[in-house]
Amino acid sequence: MKSLSDCSVTVIGLGLMGASLCMDLKRRNLCREVRGVTRSISTILRSFEENAVDLATTDLGSGVAGADIVILSTPVRAVVSILERLGPMLWPGTVVMDMGSTKAEICAAMEGLPPRIQPIGGHPMTGKETAGYAAAESGLYEQAPWVLTPLARTRQETVSLATELVRAVGAFPVVIEPVRHDRLVAAISHLPYMVASALVHTVADGAAADSTVWELAAGGFRDTSRVAASDTQMFLDILMTNRGAVLAQLDSLDGHLNELRTLLADGDEESLREKLACSQSVRAAWQQKKALPATQAGS
Amino acid sequence: MKSLSDCSVTVIGLGLMGASLCMDLKRRNLCREVRGVTRSISTILRSFEENAVDLATTDLGSGVAGADIVILSTPVRAVVSILERLGPMLWPGTVVMDMGSTKAEICAAMEGLPPRIQPIGGHPMTGKETAGYAAAESGLYEQAPWVLTPLARTRQETVSLATELVRAVGAFPVVIEPVRHDRLVAAISHLPYMVASALVHTVADGAAADSTVWELAAGGFRDTSRVAASDTQMFLDILMTNRGAVLAQLDSLDGHLNELRTLLADGDEESLREKLACSQSVRAAWQQKKALPATQAGS
Repeated sequence: MKSLSDCSVTVIGLGLMGASLCMDLKRRNLCREVRGVTRSISTILRSFEENAVDLATTDLGSGVAGADIVILSTPVRAVVSILERLGPMLWPGTVVMDMGSTKAEICAAMEGLPPRIQPIGGHPMTGKETAGYAAAESGLYEQAPWVLTPLARTRQETVSLATELVRAVGAFPVVIEPVRHDRLVAAISHLPYMVASALVHTVADGAAADSTVWELAAGGFRDTSRVAASDTQMFLDILMTNRGAVLAQLDSLDGHLNELRTLLADGDEESLREKLACSQSVRAAWQQKKALPATQAGS
Repeated sequence: MKSLSDCSVTVIGLGLMGASLCMDLKRRNLCREVRGVTRSISTILRSFEENAVDLATTDLGSGVAGADIVILSTPVRAVVSILERLGPMLWPGTVVMDMGSTKAEICAAMEGLPPRIQPIGGHPMTGKETAGYAAAESGLYEQAPWVLTPLARTRQETVSLATELVRAVGAFPVVIEPVRHDRLVAAISHLPYMVASALVHTVADGAAADSTVWELAAGGFRDTSRVAASDTQMFLDILMTNRGAVLAQLDSLDGHLNELRTLLADGDEESLREKLACSQSVRAAWQQKKALPATQAGS
């Protein structure tokens, strides 16, 4: 069975996620060879200079030629589009992973790869609101959950190799089905993004009348709105490939916001206290559990 | 004119905000004497041990006797209630400040102080989601905006003394009217709290069906929901003393959330991109400005 150290790994897309992965693989000497595929000439130069890759190219075909593992790290719909033309470029047994934030559409596209290719979906649950190569860093995946979504055709040795890679960069693997993944991340990632965007718009409306609001905005606004600064194209792809689940979460949130609004408008202090105390204790308990070592929090 | 170094300062309430202020005043030797008033015997002992005060007591009267500056640092409605009985305990010229998160009701209550007392409202715009003495720390106020709301009767030398205190702990003063303060913080502090609470409830609903959601929840959920873990009583007081402004902000947010929802449901990708790109650029620009030195961001 192939081990990571024997593998030539090609990462397609050298943004925050892809370039951070390259840096870990290359600088920690985790595999035989690290290649990057990017559209940007300056990123090619920079990734060389910074010892993030052994080889980088703008040409997809030469980038993936002879690779043992190909990892797609572009916005979701670009992953789908690359999967449609990737098959003929790969040799038999190549493992094709991705790092996209929704899994159902990507895994459906992976079904279209030739039978000799071994696909497996993936999604590291970490990130920053800053995008691109410039934001990349070694160690980004330490202690992060990294979802793996094997297809029916995915062999156990492929799952093992993907798991080895995930663990090698310090993350912990969580194996679940693509549709279930998409439903879960709609709640904990896509909904917070929509909420953050709406919050920024609301404060911006107020700032049009009184711009002092920006001076006073402190930690509460900063954290609650942080993900609104995320890359728009990345999130547009996520939202458009997970519409049903995101809409359902928006409706659920709307119900809770309306309930809070009504309690406040009615001055129903006891019910308001109860509802706020409930979210307080749930959020505090989650934080406490998260503070445990990743091996205990993982599945 | 009195300077801070001549003053005996009494802080009423040794929670996160009050105890952090005591630690700065005492350890940096910023005033003549630091006293704390708290309901908790263990907090008295701990504040002594940790060199946060010169004297601590559970007795309000002996705590404020002879103080030059009295700073109320309890939940908002407790501030109002203490203000109602504080007057007769103070000597002429005593400056009475507070650190409450809403200002209109508190400043109205300050009007009830005897004419010989010098009141001024205050609100340091910082904090953490953890409450109580145990969460207190030196340096909490570094680079934070600290709102001051003088009353019509507040003398210029009182504003100067309050400003000196604010600057002494590293914060920068922003002088505005109480009602305007409450309108502004409804948007950037109270609304994020309501949103965070609703978000936690929404995720908790999903977790009832599939608890794996808690394992996957990462940075996006963590930051967007952080303030939901804040002290419930503190926020209940804030919300109940700023209902009109908070309700208006909830309605504004609801409008933006509905618009985002409709664009996503309709698959109107170009309009959705435009709205998301707008909040992206506004949020990124605010972050960039906040990264400047506090003296430039202040008024």
